[in-house]
Amino acid sequence: MYSHETFYRVTYADTDQMRYMYYGQYPRLFEIGRVEAMRALGFSYRSFENDGILMPVLDLKSTYLKPAFYDERLKIVTTVDQMPAARIHFNYEIFNEENLKIHVAETNLAFIDGTTFKPRRIPAQFAEALKPFFTHEQNR
Amino acid sequence: MYSHETFYRVTYADTDQMRYMYYGQYPRLFEIGRVEAMRALGFSYRSFENDGILMPVLDLKSTYLKPAFYDERLKIVTTVDQMPAARIHFNYEIFNEENLKIHVAETNLAFIDGTTFKPRRIPAQFAEALKPFFTHEQNR
Amino acid sequence: MYSHETFYRVTYADTDQMRYMYYGQYPRLFEIGRVEAMRALGFSYRSFENDGILMPVLDLKSTYLKPAFYDERLKIVTTVDQMPAARIHFNYEIFNEENLKIHVAETNLAFIDGTTFKPRRIPAQFAEALKPFFTHEQNR
Amino acid sequence: MYSHETFYRVTYADTDQMRYMYYGQYPRLFEIGRVEAMRALGFSYRSFENDGILMPVLDLKSTYLKPAFYDERLKIVTTVDQMPAARIHFNYEIFNEENLKIHVAETNLAFIDGTTFKPRRIPAQFAEALKPFFTHEQNR
Repeated sequence: MYSHETFYRVTYADTDQMRYMYYGQYPRLFEIGRVEAMRALGFSYRSFENDGILMPVLDLKSTYLKPAFYDERLKIVTTVDQMPAARIHFNYEIFNEENLKIHVAETNLAFIDGTTFKPRRIPAQFAEALKPFFTHEQNR
Repeated sequence: MYSHETFYRVTYADTDQMRYMYYGQYPRLFEIGRVEAMRALGFSYRSFENDGILMPVLDLKSTYLKPAFYDERLKIVTTVDQMPAARIHFNYEIFNEENLKIHVAETNLAFIDGTTFKPRRIPAQFAEALKPFFTHEQNR
Repeated sequence: MYSHETFYRVTYADTDQMRYMYYGQYPRLFEIGRVEAMRALGFSYRSFENDGILMPVLDLKSTYLKPAFYDERLKIVTTVDQMPAARIHFNYEIFNEENLKIHVAETNLAFIDGTTFKPRRIPAQFAEALKPFFTHEQNR
Repeated sequence: MYSHETFYRVTYADTDQMRYMYYGQYPRLFEIGRVEAMRALGFSYRSFENDGILMPVLDLKSTYLKPAFYDERLKIVTTVDQMPAARIHFNYEIFNEENLKIHVAETNLAFIDGTTFKPRRIPAQFAEALKPFFTHEQNR
């Protein structure tokens, strides 16, 4: 299991007239969560694209436990809970300033070739970097 | 079952550098789908809020079957498939200009009191307007 | 002078906790205004891009006269007030449901070559389509 | 003159199919710039609203010098260049990772009473905090 924390400050742009962060803003936070989780491992999605690898989102599940409010500094915990192969599964947990869990979500993303738009496997170096986090489970 | 169609033109703002409509834009389309489905029945979410009724989103599931592209006129089919009580469940299907189904999603929304922020039942008149669409099933 | 009207319904996504349409949503409306103004003349920005012509925005001026509110159906009046050559100037006026002018704005856009990213002149056919709207002034 | 720097990482959500940050995303960056400039002085716009003070945007001018690209870490320099009274004027300069100035903009914001929605003067404590940055000029 590989897990990473990053932070996001709710902007006025994110709010709606219910005074909540608009429900459609959360996918932006998941994007930030997984991109920063990858960067912390030494990989940037920017360089993936430069190498001809795209990672489109296949599906998304979101549960809105409590609202997020303007100017709150949210903690986004992003977790890769199984060794990825043809696709990568991310879990997201969002916590507010009182450390209350306000949102849980998950996404699957594919690895596809940017030229043919056909599925491909996870880039080998990225797989190598993730392996140490899953060795223990695989040995069980 | 109550079903309603509306249309949405993909803007440049919606696109990302993969040339797809950004995955986080879809919730905006669901919002438009359900608001127009309600309006077609004679109800506006605007007037609900003026009457002190809020409808926050509880959960969301989205499956990205195929990408949506810039300037496509998408068809959003919004369906209420069970008579709502404490919450309302919406299904969404999105079709592109070739009438290919590119996205399916569903959300649950609560009815809450805008003053106490406590759950309440569906407004009576809205329930009345929906009933005819569910009578047949209830008689079975 | 060439002028065109289109309509935009303010979504919940557009609102902020001041209950106004967020000030940063207006550029989306200008985009819709100018794209629909071009489409009414028989030109789509989509086909421009397919032909290798990009139209990046060079500058923007916006004046917020009155707020726009949730669910209002706004009228966007887009005007090309001078015959474009190396760039095209658009004026935008936005009116609310009471026909009050709530916003005025203007943008300049360049025509650039999608391969070289160098400036180029307005596509000849687009210029032809616009000419009739400016002949009178030129004859004065 | 009071000046403050903050940073913003361009997200995938911000990009469009021209591979630029969408022109309509810049106002979000100005919002972040001015809110962080205020926070650095010990003031949060959140607490202003809690005290019944709103700061709607009156006008905006933006010049797009060069595009911003995905994943770039942009520097936003926000400057208050004159002592505010009934309104506050912000200048914004945005620099990319090569420290090239890619965008300049300015906005005027009003101070209004959140109950009456009427204009009011700048909150006294905020004025006090800004004064030291303008004393020199006033003495000239």
